[in-house]
Amino acid sequence: MTLILALDFGGTKLAAATVHAGSKQWLGYERRLSPANANADTDLEIMRSVINSLLKGAKPEAIGVSFGGPVDATTGKVRLSHHVLGWENVPLRDLLEEEFGVPAYVDNDANVAALGEYRFGAGQGYDSLFYMTVSTGVGGGWILNGKPWRGAEGMAGEIGHMVVDPSGPVCLCGKRGCVERLASGPYMAQDVREVLRNVRAACPEDIPPSRQGRQGRRGEVLRELVGDNLELITGQIVSEAAAAGDDLAKEILYRASWALGVGIGNVANLINPQLFVLGGGVMKAGEDFWQVLRKVARETALPEVPSEIVSAALGDDAPLWGAVALAEDVLG
Amino acid sequence: MTLILALDFGGTKLAAATVHAGSKQWLGYERRLSPANANADTDLEIMRSVINSLLKGAKPEAIGVSFGGPVDATTGKVRLSHHVLGWENVPLRDLLEEEFGVPAYVDNDANVAALGEYRFGAGQGYDSLFYMTVSTGVGGGWILNGKPWRGAEGMAGEIGHMVVDPSGPVCLCGKRGCVERLASGPYMAQDVREVLRNVRAACPEDIPPSRQGRQGRRGEVLRELVGDNLELITGQIVSEAAAAGDDLAKEILYRASWALGVGIGNVANLINPQLFVLGGGVMKAGEDFWQVLRKVARETALPEVPSEIVSAALGDDAPLWGAVALAEDVLG
Repeated sequence: MTLILALDFGGTKLAAATVHAGSKQWLGYERRLSPANANADTDLEIMRSVINSLLKGAKPEAIGVSFGGPVDATTGKVRLSHHVLGWENVPLRDLLEEEFGVPAYVDNDANVAALGEYRFGAGQGYDSLFYMTVSTGVGGGWILNGKPWRGAEGMAGEIGHMVVDPSGPVCLCGKRGCVERLASGPYMAQDVREVLRNVRAACPEDIPPSRQGRQGRRGEVLRELVGDNLELITGQIVSEAAAAGDDLAKEILYRASWALGVGIGNVANLINPQLFVLGGGVMKAGEDFWQVLRKVARETALPEVPSEIVSAALGDDAPLWGAVALAEDVLG
Repeated sequence: MTLILALDFGGTKLAAATVHAGSKQWLGYERRLSPANANADTDLEIMRSVINSLLKGAKPEAIGVSFGGPVDATTGKVRLSHHVLGWENVPLRDLLEEEFGVPAYVDNDANVAALGEYRFGAGQGYDSLFYMTVSTGVGGGWILNGKPWRGAEGMAGEIGHMVVDPSGPVCLCGKRGCVERLASGPYMAQDVREVLRNVRAACPEDIPPSRQGRQGRRGEVLRELVGDNLELITGQIVSEAAAAGDDLAKEILYRASWALGVGIGNVANLINPQLFVLGGGVMKAGEDFWQVLRKVARETALPEVPSEIVSAALGDDAPLWGAVALAEDVLG
């Protein structure tokens, strides 16, 4: 049986797994956190030890790799990582092919996860789909005509920086109202924190008592959840607070689901894929979140452009399963 | 030599041409206006007489057809026309195949024009491109991996109804701030007219003299160009007035080029095609218009996503040349 090695360099985490080609069951599977002061060398070192412990001397027939950052998939060269230093122009495919003496294929995580969901997850049986991950960032990957579509510079799928509200808040990319600026976990947490700080700063002298009451309920649950330490607020905390009825958290989440809905509707009009597959931590925000997103997407798309929008099926393993598909394709 | 018949059902105009496969020179070429009270039957009747006058008894080997409205390209059935009555569910491909006894292929005009520019025009030598036409509407068509990409329901390319300003004016489709709402000729004319009417209605009592002067210059050229008959204002008149320095016309045109730039930048991030090809009457608005559009597109796209944006090369003949390409592909 053909042994395949799948690797996932995820920025804050590293994962590797082995599987027999054609099987849907891992033979071996390991996950490690990337240390806070990680660089490309330490990541590669950790990955080597994980691989050795998985392979135990066996030799894979091919290696598939998901990398959390821009990659030139034709050469397998990493362009850079936005999270870990030292990845600039690392020829990751060549390194692996030399070290293990077998063919390897490297692509960025959104493309690879799209392929994983298409081959093994929610996208099975479809011919065209757009996969989106909504967590610390917002990224996407394409399957068109049953194959990954990477774009001329390998940059396709960047829905995170589609502008949906040109009068919205400023994103790290310099534009206003990008999907990622409105819908990623860290940005939602940041916006919530800012509102809470301003309310506190203004209280109690500047705000009339009637409004104080309202402002109090807005954010009250959020404050309780983090014991008043605003730094502890995350995207997930915002979700929890919204589920518990916090109005501020609900507003911020509503805006996020609205932004995702507009983005998806725009993409539907533009490419008209059969399916949208949505994964990532933010998508666990609950039924209301999904409902708003689906409604706004439907309103944004033309009536002739129906959009099926489903939850990703493979969770954090989507990139690993996509890496398996990459390796299987290398074997032909 | 293989004779090909190319047809263009354009909504307000009908065109047909003949060419030898592989040639870039028309053998015969005719254009007719569709009468104001046209329906599908009269359009077909006019087209028959044009075809007969072109073919003079010769028999083509294949027929390619561009249709100005949604088409199911797999069956060659027209869904409807937004301009001409009676086209609902007309099996145009079957009609033509029966009448002429040769294979035919029918697709919507934006897809066909994209194919025309790809095979015979500004997109020659590229592998992926997005073609946009900006005139009475805003539409688009895709070439990906050297082939038309039509989408699951044949609706891909609808950049006209991408929302770029959710607080913008309401579009016929019900949404606010669609690209078409901001950049199509008739909508630009409508917005200019509305401003001019409001200025007149408010003058002279309500506006202080200092502002009256300014408002006067805004729109003065526009009024002159149409002899004060605002109904005569068109997208082209707006362009002419802007070129002559009219501030109101310049503002409306700026907004249009901004909307197109945001749309193109968003598309670049999402699909990363090699090339954008822009045609249609509005694109003749001049160098300033192109400059703003290119600048906004560059700012909207991520720095890693360069976008080459060029003018269409085939003008009004893009759909006919695309129809030739469709017919050539049918012949294999």
